[in-house]
Amino acid sequence: MRIWITEVAPRDGLQNVKERIPTDRKVAFVDMLSETGVDEIEVTAFVHPKWVPQMADAQDVLRRIKRNPKVIYSAIVPNEKGLERALETDLDKIAVLTAATDTFNLKNINTDIEGSFQRLIPVVRKAKTEGLKVRGYVSVAFWCPYEGKVPPQRVKDMVLRLFDVGVDEVSLGDTIGRASPSDVKDLLEIILKDIPPDKIVLHFHATYGMAIANVICAWKEFGIYRFDTSAGGLGGCPYAPGASGNAATEDVAFALRESGADVRVDIKRVIESAESLGLPLESAISRVPRENL
Amino acid sequence: MRIWITEVAPRDGLQNVKERIPTDRKVAFVDMLSETGVDEIEVTAFVHPKWVPQMADAQDVLRRIKRNPKVIYSAIVPNEKGLERALETDLDKIAVLTAATDTFNLKNINTDIEGSFQRLIPVVRKAKTEGLKVRGYVSVAFWCPYEGKVPPQRVKDMVLRLFDVGVDEVSLGDTIGRASPSDVKDLLEIILKDIPPDKIVLHFHATYGMAIANVICAWKEFGIYRFDTSAGGLGGCPYAPGASGNAATEDVAFALRESGADVRVDIKRVIESAESLGLPLESAISRVPRENL
Repeated sequence: MRIWITEVAPRDGLQNVKERIPTDRKVAFVDMLSETGVDEIEVTAFVHPKWVPQMADAQDVLRRIKRNPKVIYSAIVPNEKGLERALETDLDKIAVLTAATDTFNLKNINTDIEGSFQRLIPVVRKAKTEGLKVRGYVSVAFWCPYEGKVPPQRVKDMVLRLFDVGVDEVSLGDTIGRASPSDVKDLLEIILKDIPPDKIVLHFHATYGMAIANVICAWKEFGIYRFDTSAGGLGGCPYAPGASGNAATEDVAFALRESGADVRVDIKRVIESAESLGLPLESAISRVPRENL
Repeated sequence: MRIWITEVAPRDGLQNVKERIPTDRKVAFVDMLSETGVDEIEVTAFVHPKWVPQMADAQDVLRRIKRNPKVIYSAIVPNEKGLERALETDLDKIAVLTAATDTFNLKNINTDIEGSFQRLIPVVRKAKTEGLKVRGYVSVAFWCPYEGKVPPQRVKDMVLRLFDVGVDEVSLGDTIGRASPSDVKDLLEIILKDIPPDKIVLHFHATYGMAIANVICAWKEFGIYRFDTSAGGLGGCPYAPGASGNAATEDVAFALRESGADVRVDIKRVIESAESLGLPLESAISRVPRENL
């Protein structure tokens, strides 16, 4: 299978940036990303502006981007109020949120695992009746900053429940970037017994330096071909102490291409897109002289 | 086998630093590294001060460090003149230099592959009669900045010739940091047919973001357990356009430990040693809050 990239920089990359980025610049960023060959773009999040001020212009951004028909556009929708706002825009897919530990859910969305399901179930149902695709996120699917190593069986049970509830795919997040290929193996061995690999997306962070090793392990050893990545390695997690950037789109694309995978992302365009924001980039490949790529 | 770390920051990490680092600070750095649990320290290089001014105090550094009997101390010796100076100090091991392409050798040491052997052969012989261990370096063993992908068979032939000449081990360098796990596999599959893994050391750079993936691949799939790493990810290569830091000792140690390897390096002490220089660090693990390590 060819590699399938969900570009998350406009949401995961920007949500923690303190300085408010003008809507125009976000729209231009998404439009540039739309021409890089990525398959999906997570454009924004319909969260309460009080909690994530950077995402207050979610509707405006979605209304003003120039849609590329080859790209799937999605947004995070944490609750029914968010879904109402989302449905006033033109979206292909929404993403709902849970996390693999009670503590992380409590810190992140102010309810436990069970509460997170009660919150997301009506959102999934309504979204499906409106014809939207739905992704379920499971954050801290490998390690939790509060509870440590997360039991793979618990994550699998949550994934199965998300599919029961009606989601089309699940993204497993190494939110604090602490997973090793060993952890990836532990989880995928259990999950892929009952779930086909095309339903699973992996979302790594580069914090502990193992994101690329994890991507290659998941692809080579388990046939996972869908990854969430962030142009320039932008991003992090506000509720995860020590979390740094997302796995960078250009680093993941380069490493997979060199490993023999069918990667259709234009690496130079990805870097140019990230550079357009004027933020410090975290990726390795963006520091390599362009003529060597 | 437990992981065997050759700490190269005092040499590979510092050789390109423009600002001259006082001998005192280098000595203190090596002394700190001696207490981190690394197995070897490449302390300096007996190169001509005109070419690498930072290494002009090679003899002074070696004379003033406090030797830990558990640690092997080595230095690069590119020619007979360098060996004379090296023999006036107390060393366990020297390292001689070649590279896998004529062009890289010409740019780096001003002679081709054949010339590099003619230069290193008398150095190896004399060093052996003096009771020193000898390492052979093969730079650009995967990719050359001038000649592209290097044929693995050529590298293997050079490695065999180095052993014929009398070296005890060979370190294969991904000098420009462009190797992927696929490249590592290509080379090790050929080399390990005729050479035992304990004779091979791998020396990765983090330039293209794949060093950790390469280390894990080499260890897990091929049983390689000896790596050259640099505290803080310090270093690079002056003759390789775009080369950034070495694979960081703390990143390699963390990833291998998480992967189940027997790693005896004290990660926090490694970071403290690197921080003692006051230079910007390049590693992922040095940015993680210390209490999470």
